[in-house]
Amino acid sequence: MNSPTYAEAGVDVKKAESFVERLKRMSRRAGHDELWKGAGGYAAVYPTGKDQAIAVTTDGVGTKLLLANKLQRYDTIGIDLVAMCANDLICVGAKPTIFLDYFAIGVLEDNAADQIIKGIVDGCDQAGMILAGGETAEMPGLYQPGHFDLAGFALGNVSRSSLITGSGIAPGQTVIGVASSGIHSNGLSLARKVLPDTKECLESLLVPTHIYVQPVVQILNAIGSKIKGIAHITGGGWRNLFRLNETVGFAITNPLPIPPILQQIGKSVAAEEMYKTFNMGMGLSVIVNGTADYVIKVFQDAGFQAQVIGEVTDEAEKLRIGKVDGVKSITLGNS
Amino acid sequence: MNSPTYAEAGVDVKKAESFVERLKRMSRRAGHDELWKGAGGYAAVYPTGKDQAIAVTTDGVGTKLLLANKLQRYDTIGIDLVAMCANDLICVGAKPTIFLDYFAIGVLEDNAADQIIKGIVDGCDQAGMILAGGETAEMPGLYQPGHFDLAGFALGNVSRSSLITGSGIAPGQTVIGVASSGIHSNGLSLARKVLPDTKECLESLLVPTHIYVQPVVQILNAIGSKIKGIAHITGGGWRNLFRLNETVGFAITNPLPIPPILQQIGKSVAAEEMYKTFNMGMGLSVIVNGTADYVIKVFQDAGFQAQVIGEVTDEAEKLRIGKVDGVKSITLGNS
Repeated sequence: MNSPTYAEAGVDVKKAESFVERLKRMSRRAGHDELWKGAGGYAAVYPTGKDQAIAVTTDGVGTKLLLANKLQRYDTIGIDLVAMCANDLICVGAKPTIFLDYFAIGVLEDNAADQIIKGIVDGCDQAGMILAGGETAEMPGLYQPGHFDLAGFALGNVSRSSLITGSGIAPGQTVIGVASSGIHSNGLSLARKVLPDTKECLESLLVPTHIYVQPVVQILNAIGSKIKGIAHITGGGWRNLFRLNETVGFAITNPLPIPPILQQIGKSVAAEEMYKTFNMGMGLSVIVNGTADYVIKVFQDAGFQAQVIGEVTDEAEKLRIGKVDGVKSITLGNS
Repeated sequence: MNSPTYAEAGVDVKKAESFVERLKRMSRRAGHDELWKGAGGYAAVYPTGKDQAIAVTTDGVGTKLLLANKLQRYDTIGIDLVAMCANDLICVGAKPTIFLDYFAIGVLEDNAADQIIKGIVDGCDQAGMILAGGETAEMPGLYQPGHFDLAGFALGNVSRSSLITGSGIAPGQTVIGVASSGIHSNGLSLARKVLPDTKECLESLLVPTHIYVQPVVQILNAIGSKIKGIAHITGGGWRNLFRLNETVGFAITNPLPIPPILQQIGKSVAAEEMYKTFNMGMGLSVIVNGTADYVIKVFQDAGFQAQVIGEVTDEAEKLRIGKVDGVKSITLGNS
């Protein structure tokens, strides 16, 4: 079967993972032992007192930038940038507070730059953060005309008792899926490789990433002790669930609908590769001990489709997905 | 006189400053009032308690990246990255703790990537920080082969009593200069425009930025209440001194030696433009109330040349520089 992979789209995930492993070894210092361990490494958690810490994370939006550039639509890519960082912070139970942006461009073009910042500010408003600082770098020679890059840095507050470590995840617990808005900000290189270069496709891909902060903070405030894990589904697709706890697996029997743009990509890419690369309709997954009703209601009240999609199993690092459109079932391991 | 300016090198500082002003207006939110005001806006200062705060900042290394790429010498650019962030943190009196990197590249090339990270880790060791996280983004299509970008994000601890606001700067106080290692990480586009493209020049420009954290932390711990201002001399050159306090000026009568590479650039660029763009031999300036002897000794013991270079005056936002090599005197205003 001639099915393109993410690697063939120019992004070698294995190579990147091996680099990150070397990086971790190189950077290992005694000070790392003082950090608290948040679930999935979604954020570094730096204690500021006995019971309080600051969670910090950084992210970019990948080649979704090139889409904004191609369509000359710059007002939403900043929302993606904030989303990628803020949705990571909530996975360790942190409440996002402060955002900083790094914005690099060949030559500053006022209108595009203002639109990009407007998107970042919109994202910060959605996430309840303030844009407290940033760096704008004009770098003629590094970026081609019109090209730019964005990186985001986000801080959040978390207490010792509200830190989500993932260690409380156990077989039988409920897995909730919260709908994505579309492709979000991962897998764009592969998507662009297999999709036609039409305005319709490009606009579908550019839809900004959902920001899940407001309902998640509400849920954590109300029933934090019942929330055992939160996975932001980013690069690596549904394998992000494996980040939460190495001793469990997941049986997904009632997945959310797959957005049309991802269905279209799925016509050219094998199902397993799809689930290893894209969010497949689920931007966030929440593991609950006990009834899911309240959690689902809060997400729905905030305008997000959410439902019970399956449960935690005792099959370590195995993800079984049943009843997927047109595919009988899929099993993913953490590799 | 045909003297190239930074603007002619493709970097329009005025345009960038007007963009940053619009950005500040757009992003203004009530939450900003809760931040503490650190001197010069070198870092955002977010309170984590009544007497404690986290200072945060982000920066990049500008087109120094292109030099590393041209020389295929990747092991020091990470030091520059950490320096640009860590030296900003100490200007508000913060002790650097945590660093995160954003590393974007077209295609991940193992050796270069490892060298870049090694530099970041070296920089963190010098600054007493740990590399607690980061993002590595492979973006085929955005970056040309071999090109990459780096952004850094740094956190530090600061207490209410150790926060440097600049408000205590007053006429008659002593201005200390601490030597730079060379061009540091600002003004590279202009430097490249006027210098010959020889290996010798390029290597001089690539010398990594000094990291002043260790002596500054020692000084702040010992005589913090005497230190009224610290200016990291970055983009904008000596105009960075104006960031500290709007009501004073500076008379610099005994400047540090100008590094050879900056002298060479000075043959093609007018003196005023030089002082508005480059560090001119001074990577950091410290304003002390009282005797400078201890401060100078600590810098010298840490291996940095340091001396009294002048004093604070009552001429608001005016900088008089006397006895400069080959130039009788220069006066800079904050514009």
